[in-house]
Amino acid sequence: MRITVLAGGVGGARFALGLREAARRGLAGLADARIDIVANTGDDLWLAGLKVCPDLDSLLYALAGVNDTDRGWGRAGDTERVNAELAAFGVGWPWFTLGDLDIGTHIARTSMLQEGASLTEATARLSARWDLGVTLIPVTDDDVPTFVETTAGDSMHFEEWWVRTRASEPAARFVQRGIEVARPAPAALDAIRGADIVLVAPSNPVVSIGTILGIDGIRAALADASAPVVGVSPIIGDAVVRGMADVCLPAIGVATNAGSVGRHYGSRRDGGLLDGWLVDPVDAGVVDAVEEAGIACRAVPLWMSDPDRSAALAVDAIELARGLRADVAV
Amino acid sequence: MRITVLAGGVGGARFALGLREAARRGLAGLADARIDIVANTGDDLWLAGLKVCPDLDSLLYALAGVNDTDRGWGRAGDTERVNAELAAFGVGWPWFTLGDLDIGTHIARTSMLQEGASLTEATARLSARWDLGVTLIPVTDDDVPTFVETTAGDSMHFEEWWVRTRASEPAARFVQRGIEVARPAPAALDAIRGADIVLVAPSNPVVSIGTILGIDGIRAALADASAPVVGVSPIIGDAVVRGMADVCLPAIGVATNAGSVGRHYGSRRDGGLLDGWLVDPVDAGVVDAVEEAGIACRAVPLWMSDPDRSAALAVDAIELARGLRADVAV
Repeated sequence: MRITVLAGGVGGARFALGLREAARRGLAGLADARIDIVANTGDDLWLAGLKVCPDLDSLLYALAGVNDTDRGWGRAGDTERVNAELAAFGVGWPWFTLGDLDIGTHIARTSMLQEGASLTEATARLSARWDLGVTLIPVTDDDVPTFVETTAGDSMHFEEWWVRTRASEPAARFVQRGIEVARPAPAALDAIRGADIVLVAPSNPVVSIGTILGIDGIRAALADASAPVVGVSPIIGDAVVRGMADVCLPAIGVATNAGSVGRHYGSRRDGGLLDGWLVDPVDAGVVDAVEEAGIACRAVPLWMSDPDRSAALAVDAIELARGLRADVAV
Repeated sequence: MRITVLAGGVGGARFALGLREAARRGLAGLADARIDIVANTGDDLWLAGLKVCPDLDSLLYALAGVNDTDRGWGRAGDTERVNAELAAFGVGWPWFTLGDLDIGTHIARTSMLQEGASLTEATARLSARWDLGVTLIPVTDDDVPTFVETTAGDSMHFEEWWVRTRASEPAARFVQRGIEVARPAPAALDAIRGADIVLVAPSNPVVSIGTILGIDGIRAALADASAPVVGVSPIIGDAVVRGMADVCLPAIGVATNAGSVGRHYGSRRDGGLLDGWLVDPVDAGVVDAVEEAGIACRAVPLWMSDPDRSAALAVDAIELARGLRADVAV
């Protein structure tokens, strides 16, 4: 059994933890499942000469159990001594805090890249420090930094828009620079092509999943894959669970609503992404509209408030996928 | 009055502090002196993708008053959290400790270099954080990493030889890779050409001062300079005051002796470096031999154990220089 998850950062990490937990408990026939996480790299940035990968790091730290669960980003127990030095030297973004332990990751990664490793290889080497139980794969080894064009006519890196301006100017458009020529990481393509089930984590549909799907070759690989594709809504009761999907969705003309996001992804039958879609029971009212769009839709609890619930959600996604394709290996 | 000092790391820093102290106290007509420190870069290295400049950093931290005086290197009160991360990821040299605050410097410098700044410019930007009272100038903007060829036939970076192997294999030869094509930093040449007095700090004659002199154009600039050149022995009583000159001098066939080092530098009269040479009173016995070699030699206390003594030594060096050339501006 091979499960491949398309994921952004924090929501993706929570979902990946649930899936790994289900596998560790041997639920839903997942005991020996191989789990590959194809991660968004659209909010990666070069800062003070260091390659920073917010989503890969969120996934890495959460799966390693070293993430800061209170703050929601970075390493637990981190300090900011290096960051203060950089600020004193006038280097980097004073409003973008890098923890000391986190900087260790960035230096290590940057050093590997400078020695010629691909981001895929660097991610594997960083991951090898821990027994993650899953494989982290960047969707592409190429830089595809997301820039936000605001309705006021400004353009800035996504992290600057989100962290410095707190999205104060509405986004008119998100542009992943270089995405036209970016190629999918070979391991990401392989994970999609070889999957028995593909799951779409409850991540930002615009700047996380949208970026993954925007890499040339990823949509085609998903369309051609034998695996069913089941997604989990990042929206519960017309609000984002975490992150900033609500301020991103307007730029692509999609309402902040579990049904709208499912229909935006679209049915595979019609060339879209999804065979199945999970929404929360509070959104049960959208199930019919999603099913009419050709996507099998179930309402199951989506709040991943503890490992039990996260694992249960993963099992729900697996079981929906199995029900859609009689040929999915158990 | 313009004073230019050729300097390595810790000994150079101690001497530079003394000279600055003398200037701050208005001793020896130094009240308004401009002080330029031309620093060795031969033990610079790229480690984990970061540009590390041990001598420039020793000078910077000492002059900024943030150096660790107990340990003799790095920043006071530093921690090693990032270093532990790098070790856990298998990146860098496990035996070469980088402090967190120190890493802040390396990241800032590397970032500036990557943006196209020269090492001279990066050093100026780092220096601007503090009121150093002197200008730090790398002798060259080009990489000239020192490799040690040992008598056992091994070859390794100087820092590896010194820090990891503790110089356990004697050095047969020191090779500054790339020195044949390295050019002097324009500001270093200007500091030598425009100096009223050039001082040679009590630094390692082989891997610090030797590297500075090995950069094409530096010896010629010194030979042509109107300023007298006065050096301070790094050897007192046939032992190094600090550092590792004793394990470096044998490789160039020079005895660890204040007189031998002075004669190794040689008299300017004969195309060598020095007009004057200061040795410690315990080495007064070498004065005649040095003078016979055409170098004015004085025995004055060289131990820079506190600011008073360091300042006094700087004054001794200045006064010897003034006595050698009637035309030196006061």
